[in-house]
Amino acid sequence: MNEQEFNYVSVPTKYIEVDDIRYAYRSLGTPAEVPVVCLQHFTGTLENWDPIIIDGLAKERQVILIDNTGVGNSGGKTPDNVLDMSKDAIKVINALGIHQCDILGFSLGGFLAQAMADLRPELFRKLIIVGAAPQGAKALHSFPQLVEKAFALEPKEQYLYVFATKSEKSRAKITSTLNRLYIRKEERDQNASMDAITAQISALTRWGTDPVTIDLSKITQPVLIVQGSNDEMMDSASSLELYKSIPNAILIYYPDSAHGSFNQYPELFVEQANSFLNRFE
Amino acid sequence: MNEQEFNYVSVPTKYIEVDDIRYAYRSLGTPAEVPVVCLQHFTGTLENWDPIIIDGLAKERQVILIDNTGVGNSGGKTPDNVLDMSKDAIKVINALGIHQCDILGFSLGGFLAQAMADLRPELFRKLIIVGAAPQGAKALHSFPQLVEKAFALEPKEQYLYVFATKSEKSRAKITSTLNRLYIRKEERDQNASMDAITAQISALTRWGTDPVTIDLSKITQPVLIVQGSNDEMMDSASSLELYKSIPNAILIYYPDSAHGSFNQYPELFVEQANSFLNRFE
Repeated sequence: MNEQEFNYVSVPTKYIEVDDIRYAYRSLGTPAEVPVVCLQHFTGTLENWDPIIIDGLAKERQVILIDNTGVGNSGGKTPDNVLDMSKDAIKVINALGIHQCDILGFSLGGFLAQAMADLRPELFRKLIIVGAAPQGAKALHSFPQLVEKAFALEPKEQYLYVFATKSEKSRAKITSTLNRLYIRKEERDQNASMDAITAQISALTRWGTDPVTIDLSKITQPVLIVQGSNDEMMDSASSLELYKSIPNAILIYYPDSAHGSFNQYPELFVEQANSFLNRFE
Repeated sequence: MNEQEFNYVSVPTKYIEVDDIRYAYRSLGTPAEVPVVCLQHFTGTLENWDPIIIDGLAKERQVILIDNTGVGNSGGKTPDNVLDMSKDAIKVINALGIHQCDILGFSLGGFLAQAMADLRPELFRKLIIVGAAPQGAKALHSFPQLVEKAFALEPKEQYLYVFATKSEKSRAKITSTLNRLYIRKEERDQNASMDAITAQISALTRWGTDPVTIDLSKITQPVLIVQGSNDEMMDSASSLELYKSIPNAILIYYPDSAHGSFNQYPELFVEQANSFLNRFE
């Protein structure tokens, strides 16, 4: 695909003020009754979505990307726990005048998707949860150590360490993803600050260590769970646990892939996600 | 969908002779370089494919359904093991002049898909394996007992016992599948004979108890594995084992479903299978 063909890389950043905090977001796509709101991973900003995925989803619906509190160009102080992050995201969704939406939550965003569906079930029609885990997942107990290992690497290897497997094929595909994140030249989002990162490390770790408060069996929405074969950060088996706990969930595992499962197979993911959002009940 | 809209329910049965045995098959769909050959479950004949699935696949490719040796309207004596069944299916594929094809193998047919890819890797481009297990799967050790329980039920309950979960939703969907199997009125295939059934029970059980001979890590074709959440016959976890053993496999689990996973979500399966066969590499 020609770089110029992506709409996502040129859509302007907008701002909305909620409770005296200015939130950055981007909206694109075909106006639709039910938009999909996208919530990002640890350290992720508006620049961390694969244009193939965002444009692919936007062909069939409105796609809204949000920088949560204190992240990227959004103001405020990033909470140190998923529940408060979820309440913030719900406030932004309300402020945008959305009465019902779907959620695409990646990694930390997939934790928020679970907590938001628990907090406000009527607000969310369907959920897509990529590379995530249920509360109490043991893999997250060592999240700070994994971050420390990753942060010791130079930026490209850091990205590959988390999102790719060791195979050449996986590394090549995730390198392509990484390159696509830099197609956008103008009006780029700020990187996550050290304060935001520190708070997110706490939130991610606590998702694994704090008491379990969400009853996943009460999430009655259709849920699509996507994961790679070798996600060390979340432990790939965590997605099977999610699938077994949520009554109306589809689980899809991609081959030879790590935390960046849907980044590695973006066209396949777009087909599966659009099919799920358009037709699955 | 209107009953008359299905092509599968009116396509004539054809016959081809191989090694003095006359095999029954049906072929429909859009002529394509790579057809998909469909191999059926225990006791299944040409009448046991869901018309929604066969017509859905046939919109984008040629679909060929085969009664294997001694099953339905095919002659010969059903082998009591998967290897010999696989050799027979390969003979039929060769006799049909097919140089390369995809396989859709359901249950027992999914065992054949594995054995056929092992025997003749160059003949098969991609595999779809639904409701199956690898060699050595412990769930199959008690296959004869499960069959005994199922056969004690009246026909509709027998079908539901194997293919549906206990939920009303699953039972309703699988009842619809069962009804679709009787849309075809003319030139119906014979039911599997008691001889064929006895041999198949042996083959299915031996797949679990005989020594493992196939190295699944050598199956390099793209493979799509589909399974239900609660397949008692195969044990749903067997599909995860397949996924972990085959290097380039996608695994999809459907919600609240048993051995009839793809029958319960036929439209979703058609989208996913066509996407996989058309574009996944």
